Amino acid sequence: MTELSPLQIERLKYQPKLPESLSSGINSLEMIEGNATQSVRDQEQIKALFSNTYGKPTVTFKKSSLSKSSNITNVGVILSGGQAPGGHNVIAGLYDALKSANSQNKLYGFLGGPSGIIEGKYVEFDDKFIDAYRNTGGFDIIGSGRTKLETEEQFRSSLEVCKKLNISAVVIIGGDDSNTNAALLAEWFVKNNAGIQVIGCPKTIDGDLKNEQIEISFGFDTATKTYAELIGNIERDANSAKKYWHFVKIMGRSASHVALEAALQTQPNITLISEEVEEKKMSLDSIISYMTDIISRRAEIGKNFGIAIIPEGLIEFIPEMKSMISNLNDVMAELEKDSSFTNASSITEKFSIVERKLSSENARVYSSLPSLIKSQLLADRDPHGNVQVSKIETEKLLIEMITERLAKMKKEGKYSGKFSSQSHFFGYEGRCAFPSNFDADYCYSLGYNAFALISFGLTGYLSSVRNLTESADKWIAGGIPLTMMMNMEKRHGEMKPVIQKALVKLDGAVFKRLESNREDWAMNDRYLFPGAIQYFGPASVCDITTVTLQLERAKSLINA
Amino acid sequence: MTELSPLQIERLKYQPKLPESLSSGINSLEMIEGNATQSVRDQEQIKALFSNTYGKPTVTFKKSSLSKSSNITNVGVILSGGQAPGGHNVIAGLYDALKSANSQNKLYGFLGGPSGIIEGKYVEFDDKFIDAYRNTGGFDIIGSGRTKLETEEQFRSSLEVCKKLNISAVVIIGGDDSNTNAALLAEWFVKNNAGIQVIGCPKTIDGDLKNEQIEISFGFDTATKTYAELIGNIERDANSAKKYWHFVKIMGRSASHVALEAALQTQPNITLISEEVEEKKMSLDSIISYMTDIISRRAEIGKNFGIAIIPEGLIEFIPEMKSMISNLNDVMAELEKDSSFTNASSITEKFSIVERKLSSENARVYSSLPSLIKSQLLADRDPHGNVQVSKIETEKLLIEMITERLAKMKKEGKYSGKFSSQSHFFGYEGRCAFPSNFDADYCYSLGYNAFALISFGLTGYLSSVRNLTESADKWIAGGIPLTMMMNMEKRHGEMKPVIQKALVKLDGAVFKRLESNREDWAMNDRYLFPGAIQYFGPASVCDITTVTLQLERAKSLINA
Repeated sequence: MTELSPLQIERLKYQPKLPESLSSGINSLEMIEGNATQSVRDQEQIKALFSNTYGKPTVTFKKSSLSKSSNITNVGVILSGGQAPGGHNVIAGLYDALKSANSQNKLYGFLGGPSGIIEGKYVEFDDKFIDAYRNTGGFDIIGSGRTKLETEEQFRSSLEVCKKLNISAVVIIGGDDSNTNAALLAEWFVKNNAGIQVIGCPKTIDGDLKNEQIEISFGFDTATKTYAELIGNIERDANSAKKYWHFVKIMGRSASHVALEAALQTQPNITLISEEVEEKKMSLDSIISYMTDIISRRAEIGKNFGIAIIPEGLIEFIPEMKSMISNLNDVMAELEKDSSFTNASSITEKFSIVERKLSSENARVYSSLPSLIKSQLLADRDPHGNVQVSKIETEKLLIEMITERLAKMKKEGKYSGKFSSQSHFFGYEGRCAFPSNFDADYCYSLGYNAFALISFGLTGYLSSVRNLTESADKWIAGGIPLTMMMNMEKRHGEMKPVIQKALVKLDGAVFKRLESNREDWAMNDRYLFPGAIQYFGPASVCDITTVTLQLERAKSLINA
Repeated sequence: MTELSPLQIERLKYQPKLPESLSSGINSLEMIEGNATQSVRDQEQIKALFSNTYGKPTVTFKKSSLSKSSNITNVGVILSGGQAPGGHNVIAGLYDALKSANSQNKLYGFLGGPSGIIEGKYVEFDDKFIDAYRNTGGFDIIGSGRTKLETEEQFRSSLEVCKKLNISAVVIIGGDDSNTNAALLAEWFVKNNAGIQVIGCPKTIDGDLKNEQIEISFGFDTATKTYAELIGNIERDANSAKKYWHFVKIMGRSASHVALEAALQTQPNITLISEEVEEKKMSLDSIISYMTDIISRRAEIGKNFGIAIIPEGLIEFIPEMKSMISNLNDVMAELEKDSSFTNASSITEKFSIVERKLSSENARVYSSLPSLIKSQLLADRDPHGNVQVSKIETEKLLIEMITERLAKMKKEGKYSGKFSSQSHFFGYEGRCAFPSNFDADYCYSLGYNAFALISFGLTGYLSSVRNLTESADKWIAGGIPLTMMMNMEKRHGEMKPVIQKALVKLDGAVFKRLESNREDWAMNDRYLFPGAIQYFGPASVCDITTVTLQLERAKSLINA
């Protein structure tokens, strides 16, 4: 018998809320079709690539007074990519819907991500199995993986596995890439008369899978609240001890949504936003100047402490670093085969070899970096031969360069403070937290709704639950054709159909909220302490959504 | 107007629980004296040093049917040392007790730690001031500091400040060192007929201020639960992705109580305990062997992932490292004045200089370390000229050495797994969390009880609230003479009276719990996911204490 924590025991009992439309079960639904759709850009190309699934209408569900019966439907589900809180509830919602439609329906879980459907590794769920995972974090129910489901051969293997299990629909829970692949698979199944539907569910803590149709991906709510808990605690510590600057790097890949949301929840002194750095073409030097200016101005009023938030992807958005890293990737591909480099007597020797190989401007940028970062840039490449940017300790890079700059300013009599620092990186701490009530409800609804889409015979759709700043009963359930969110982008040198990744919009309400408060938060300590996620107790604490969702919804309601 | 988070707004309303004996207020109390006490060791010396305050009886309070009136009493309070969740509630409890005794009583808060009483920097509390901090984390209400209150001159300044404010009692909220100083100050005040009482309160997340009389210091409960939340989340992530070994260093100074408690709450694969490493005289090499053995055995059964917990103080408990660091501190004192070292052309040059200066055995140990750690060992010394051990990234040291060892084993055909790692350090994340219900109640009771001790004219006592695994109404409130917990120890070359620091006992029930489960937890994944601290909801979740407290109390009840 597995041992459970007290919270886990209580959370297993939680009954997630559903939109009113879905609350009478799958057999009491009516589907309303909207207008035919177009892709966001490159309509001709997307249409040509998805000739069987392109242009379908958006749909919404409403409760029907008639009750129908359902044929037996077996479904397979896949967790794809990085963990996000609530994945287990998507599966629980899907399972409950499927069983409510016909108790003989079966739900299979493919193991270890997309490779599970290719290799035919699966489990069949039953009540006991599902019940042990309700409202818990993690993807450990069936595991996840990063195999890309995109080749003809993979599609054929998947088809065979599905046929063997008599599966007529596949649900893929993933981010933008995984849902792009869901669209490809859906199209392939139709083209080949496979009789297998494909439905996607929008997952990612990064918050970069959203658009006019998707208000937010699941997991963003819980992950940002977890990071905000920790940042708030650190702010309180900084403000008590008054002796450290804490530099906090926050996960979120290229986009800065997570860092921005965590900042709005906690109001730290400095928040860097990658998209802004790129837009303003800020150099590393100008970022250091910006931060040092705040640090020294705070020191002048006796505040030798503070909090700075740094998005994980920052380094790649600094134009000069981007250029240098790209040059370095090429140089390293060569040097890794060169014994005079691999056998170099010391790391400083390696630095010199690299600097001689880089273009002069890139060599200047590289050599200006602290040794720690220079070595991290030479560390193991990813399978594509690129440096693993997430492993570069940007927070320490900034600390080192700021320390140097402040020492120089001190010599020039321009700074007389004391700069002591602590660095932090939060990411893995939040991806598998117990889903917040919001994520528990949202995920359950997404999964339940996915089966509703299946029951109406749709394919190539993303499960969509909207109106999320209202209470769950008022949420609007429906589906969005995956092709509607697509455009053509260059990937590995080739133009490919992909779902657009949402970056932080500098003219959006969310960034504006930060921008308009920045100077006040920098100098005056407006720290907010959100504390730990609460699952029980006052609705004001337990049922709040993110600032991002609130601001974006408020804006879209005004525009509507 | 300060902006507050939703949780903060709700927590301000929480009414902490008091022991039944204190629940009718300060004027309805009766004090029961126990027997005269002795210090734990070195009785003659301690008695000689504390001739005025030594040997007093322990006391407990019970509710009295008679109600008395109280003279006006002004009290000053000091927060000393590192933050611990619940400090604000100690002050709130003290304030409420003081006002319940006589509404004309005043409570002053000394600013920025012990330096506040020396320099006469203070605030006077009123209802509005206190109410804004109830049940919140942090020490920001008056700030904290690390000034040691120990010299004759400091005592004289403190006396003057107290006289000016008509303060007749001082409450010092601190750890073992601060309470040692509280004892010295109490003795000095009596000796000099100052008419000022001194009461201590047991604070530290480290859990090393406990003994026969003190079941646990405040803050340990909340801090360990916060770290356990994060470790549990990471375990769930590791178990979902199945691709990383996470190395988690946990704050807690020399003692491993925090790491041990966090491990018992989460059941990770590897837990190192500093006290065990010292007791068994484990070398760095044997620690690496121990960890590598588990990593490779897990790899054999297809588990290339796991969680290892490392106590902050580990490095100093490894005999060879301790010796090397001590030697290095002397060497660096010399080298920092030597321009051939300070102007060395590269860091590798510095390593060579250091290695030539160290004894041959210490040079061997130093040179065996990864470059990152070698440079961290040369970084800025603390004010005493010692390396700042907490800044050494032990978690990365272990990762680097394990990576090297596994590579060697792979060459020898003894390992065929894949070792990818992530490192974490948790400390500042938990010291200022909103206090758990336990810490909120315990701290409020400690503060309330401190004023009860004052009202009966006691000095040189530690506020004591016991029987903590029972519900709060059954807690036993009283006082323990500070001298009772003291012995003589060498500090900076001199024998000094100090409160004994509690290290993890290898024959204690808490360590035994880990020891007896170690092999099972190493190979089978018994991960527990405690989740975020809950303040509302089921008592099974909200009102649990730590495993440490439960096991130690169970044992002491059997012995009683």
